[in-house]
Parts: sequence; structure tokens; C-alpha cells
Amino acid sequence: MAQQADITAMRRAVELAARGLGATSPNPVVGCVVTDASGHQVGEGWHQRAGGPHAEVHALREAGVLARGGTAYVTLEPCNHTGRTGPCAQALIEAGVSRVVYAVGDPNPQATGGADTLRAAGVEVEQGLLEDEARAGNIAWLTSVRHGRPFVRWKYAATLDGRIAAADGTSRWISSAESRADVHRLRTEADAVVVGSGTARADDPHLAVRGIEEAVQPLRVVVDTEATAVKPGARILDDAAPTLIAIAEDAETGLPDVVRLPRVGRGLSVPALLDALHQRGVRSVLLEGGPTLAGAFVAAGAVDQVVGYLAPVLLGAGPQALADAGITTITDALRLDVTETARIGTDIRITATPKER
Amino acid sequence: MAQQADITAMRRAVELAARGLGATSPNPVVGCVVTDASGHQVGEGWHQRAGGPHAEVHALREAGVLARGGTAYVTLEPCNHTGRTGPCAQALIEAGVSRVVYAVGDPNPQATGGADTLRAAGVEVEQGLLEDEARAGNIAWLTSVRHGRPFVRWKYAATLDGRIAAADGTSRWISSAESRADVHRLRTEADAVVVGSGTARADDPHLAVRGIEEAVQPLRVVVDTEATAVKPGARILDDAAPTLIAIAEDAETGLPDVVRLPRVGRGLSVPALLDALHQRGVRSVLLEGGPTLAGAFVAAGAVDQVVGYLAPVLLGAGPQALADAGITTITDALRLDVTETARIGTDIRITATPKER
Repeated sequence: MAQQADITAMRRAVELAARGLGATSPNPVVGCVVTDASGHQVGEGWHQRAGGPHAEVHALREAGVLARGGTAYVTLEPCNHTGRTGPCAQALIEAGVSRVVYAVGDPNPQATGGADTLRAAGVEVEQGLLEDEARAGNIAWLTSVRHGRPFVRWKYAATLDGRIAAADGTSRWISSAESRADVHRLRTEADAVVVGSGTARADDPHLAVRGIEEAVQPLRVVVDTEATAVKPGARILDDAAPTLIAIAEDAETGLPDVVRLPRVGRGLSVPALLDALHQRGVRSVLLEGGPTLAGAFVAAGAVDQVVGYLAPVLLGAGPQALADAGITTITDALRLDVTETARIGTDIRITATPKER
Repeated sequence: MAQQADITAMRRAVELAARGLGATSPNPVVGCVVTDASGHQVGEGWHQRAGGPHAEVHALREAGVLARGGTAYVTLEPCNHTGRTGPCAQALIEAGVSRVVYAVGDPNPQATGGADTLRAAGVEVEQGLLEDEARAGNIAWLTSVRHGRPFVRWKYAATLDGRIAAADGTSRWISSAESRADVHRLRTEADAVVVGSGTARADDPHLAVRGIEEAVQPLRVVVDTEATAVKPGARILDDAAPTLIAIAEDAETGLPDVVRLPRVGRGLSVPALLDALHQRGVRSVLLEGGPTLAGAFVAAGAVDQVVGYLAPVLLGAGPQALADAGITTITDALRLDVTETARIGTDIRITATPKER
């Protein structure tokens, strides 16, 4: 089969995988395309939700007997373990595929070994096709496996001069309607949306996903150290999505669904918060907090991606997008690599990831 | 002649015009292409410096007798007046061109009327081809004619969170080497480069153009209200380029080449400064000032274009790109239209112009 046909099939698998973003945790997103012995696509699928069939199973079901002698393209190494569903390596062998091409090796020690099982059964196995693209599509889950904590994407919207509101606190609207809609897409991709007490107090935010059909609602999290920002009747306490309030170990509250965490400085321990979320199955966090909470995450080295919506607006005064992150001199600055810039309505969206250090 | 050939010729004229940026004030930049009767290009030229031949004269000289019966493409309406050089309308008539296509009408009351003169002589005249492109290329001069003051381009370099330095004042290097080289290009396009006393005191800047051959050096201007920032021996006082220090009417100084201006608040009157520069033939200003001076220009409604170099860096503390611009609430924000985004080295350059209001 031509190399180009392999690329086309794997690119489709990467696209399919992305459909699962926000719905599969604690599992990764996975896409799969199956072709018959002559190279024609006969099945495709993606992992749709934790507990449901894996991508390979969906694609093999669609392919039926046509999979025999064909190729399976999978964005992640087929799993080797029996969890809530059977091992995919075994399913591929039973379906009679003669070749498996996967993009990214499985870093999960529980699931790894699928490639070896396939090879032992006489299946031709190749790894690495479109690895970068597949890795980017699965960055949240891969990061969570690597660090043992959820992937954190920090989203902010600011003026060209870095302000998130005017001097009097007014901010409606700095960013465009298109940018605000785009943020709802980011929420659907996340398992949890996190804000701080300042945002909770100032905006009484709702934080649920609106305007996107069949979206899995993220866990709404407020870091409310003193348990004073979220009051009964707050919009975030409605039943549109689950909610968790993180408070200090010694704070007093009458609210349900709180998690008590150790204090650090004037806030809560960011690692402890991420650990608590990880234990609840959260593998990706959208940090929508204000400057103080964002500063605490940056100081803790817990920001994995930055998505900034820059509005073509100048203010010259008002609060900044990022407050104290423990950086006092230029050599300690957090330096990033820009991975994408895009026009979103009238705004510019910049996506960047911190350089390794 | 085909429409596409007209577009090709005028696009070339627009390119040629841009070669004069920074060298022609108080005149506009102008480019000209001459084709013969069968549509082949036989001459081209651009206005290279004030006092030198106009673009049409250069192009007609190159074309010689081949211009007879041909077409002249000019980015700006051919002038009708005799200044330091003869009127171009007359030169075109004498050369025997049968058609003149120009992009932008001349708004200068001294020079206008060229089209009428051409028509009266039997020359076919068309206006408006690539008008937007030609206007953009001549935006500095057109703005200066319209407002009776120099065009002001404000350039800044900041982190994604809008900081121009860390909390301890260190800032080397926030922006990339490519961005710093790009700023030298902006300087060559400007007639004057303006900074404030804060920048003069902190950086002892040189402000001359480096690394660009045959660049016309801009006038270096420091707004030093109290006449305390620029000391004898400052780098800006060398002979690499002319220098002008703007000080308050009542300030005392031993420096040569000062201009005394009325005070406004804790600084100088921005309109008075621009008027003084305009009187000296300056038609375009590159404002490289720090946040205070930039704020004063924004407050005075005297920023015509913003060029921001955003470095993928986070600081969380430190001075902002823009300080008090007299804006306290979101409805008073200065809103802009983004006209271009570009990657410059590792940075993102955003070009924007204030919306009309």
C-alpha cells in the first residue's frame, strides 16, 4: 500500500479521536480506521466514553469480515489489558487483520504490551505514523499519565496591553462573541473548569457548557479558600453540571460537595488540588481563574498550555491577566513556544506551551 | 489592455513607492510604471527623496520615446504644481503618454488638479486602481495631510501578559532578535523616533538605525519635560543621527537642540510636540516611548497605528506596556482593528489601527 494511503487513513483516525475529547477520562481519546486487504476503508470508530467500547472495537464491528487480511490504523497502541472492556490487541487478532499501524506508544503501564501481543500472533506492526499529530490530539491524557496529575490549560482573555478589565472593574465585553463561543468548546474538551474566589465573587459565573449539543458537562470547581465566595443560590450550584468547592482544611462552610485542602500562602496548595481532581477521574483542567489563581498555578509549575484571547483594545489601566507568579527577574520568566495563532472573530487567539526546564 | 495587466503594473508601482518610506518627507512616497503602446513595461521609478525628481520623471526618463502612446501607472495623482521640480502632469503630457492610471487622489490642495490638466490635454485618465493598497503604503503621509500633524505609529514589545520588564526592571531580552531587527526597519520608515524621559534614563538608548544599508536616519526625539534625563555624553547625543530634546518652557538646560513646549499634567503637550515636529518636516513618528508617554499619546488621540511585538513569555509582575491613558471604564476603551498578524522570530507582531470615533 502506498505511504500516502497510510497517511490519509491515520489522519482520519486522528480526526475521529478528537471527537472524544472531554468525554473519555480517565481514558485517552483514540481513533481507529480499518481498511480491507486491498486498502479500501471498511470501518472507523473512536472511543466515545469511559466504560464504552474502545475505538478498535467500533471500527472492527463496522468492518466485519472485511477486516480479514486488512490494516488497522490506531492513534494509540492497542491495549493489552482487560478492563471494563476486553483487550483490543486480542480483538484485532481475532478479526484477522494482517497489519496494525499505530501512532503513539501507550505510556500506561497497565495497558502497554499490545504491540508485542500482536507481533507474537504474526501481525505486522508499525509505530510512529503521524505521531506528533496524534500526540497533540491526546496531549491532555499523555500529560496526565506523565505527571500523575491532570493536564492544565490556562485560558485568559485580555486587551493588547494585558488588561482583563478596566480600572473600575468593567469588562463586558473585552473579547468577541466568537471568542466566548470558542471558550465553550474548550470547556467541552475539559473534564473540569476551575476558577478562583475572586472570579466567583465578581462574576457569579455559571461555567457550564452552552450552545454545544451532546457536550459532556465538565466538573465545575471553585477554589474558595476561606469558603466565603460561593454563597447558597450561586449560579454555579445549579444542577446544569456537577460542582466542587475547594476550601481550606480549617474553613467553615454549610455547602455540600466541598474538598478540604492544605493552605499555601494566602491560597490552597495547587498540587493538592490537582491530586484531588485526579482522584476524581479528572485528566484535563481548563483554568479560567483570575490573575491570582493563574499566578499560583504558574508558580507551582502546573500550567501545561496557555490559550490567550487577545482583543484589539487598549485600556492603560485595570487588572492584569496574570498576577504574582513568584517571578521577579527576567531570567526567571516562564518562556513558551507558540504552537498556534488564529483569528477568532475580531480577536487573536494564541496557543503556547511552556518550554521544558 | 487587459485588466490583469493594469493590476500587475500598479502593484509594481506600489512596491516601488514603498522604497521611499522614511526618505521623502515632507513629500509622499510615490511609485510609477510606464508601459509602451503595446503594454510592455518600458520604465519605472519612485520618489527617492524630497527635492529629488518625482516618480513619474524617473520612469519617463527610463522609458524615453517608448512612452509615446503608452500608459503611466502612478500610485498618487500626478502633481500639478511647480515646487522644487516641475509639475508631473506636464511632464506626462510632454512625454506623449495617452493614458494615466492613478490609485489615490492627491489630497494636498497645493498639488491637486493634475488629473484635470491631463484630461484637458486629451490624456485618458482613470482613478482608483488598487486604491486601498496604495493608500496603505502612503498612510503616514495621507494621515499627516488629513490631520495637519505627523502620523504616529506606536511600537511596543511585551510579554503575553502585557509586561515590558520584570518586577526588578530587567528586560533583556523579552523580544526576539528578529523583532529587534524589525524595529530598525520601522525606524527607517519613520522621520522621527520618539521616547520619553523614563526610557532615556533607564536604557540610555541610541535610537539610530543599524544594520540597514542606505537608511535615512530618523530625527531622534526625547520628551524630557524637566530636562533631567538626557545628560551630556548620552548615546543619543552622538552624531549618528540628528537629535531633538523636548523640554518644558520653564525647564533649565545646557543642551543644544532643544524645543520648549507647554506643560500638560506632569508631561508636555502632545499636540504641541507633534506641531513642532511637523514644522520641522516630520510626517511620520515612531513612538518607542515607555508606558507613560504612550499613555499620553493615547489620551491625546494621537496614535494612528499600533505595532505590538508579543513575546511568548509570562512574568506576572512588572511594568505594563501602556500606563494611564485617561480610560477608567470599558466603554471608553480604545478599540482597534487588527490589520495584520505575523510571526517575527519567536514573537507575534500585531498591527492594528484605532477605529474611527
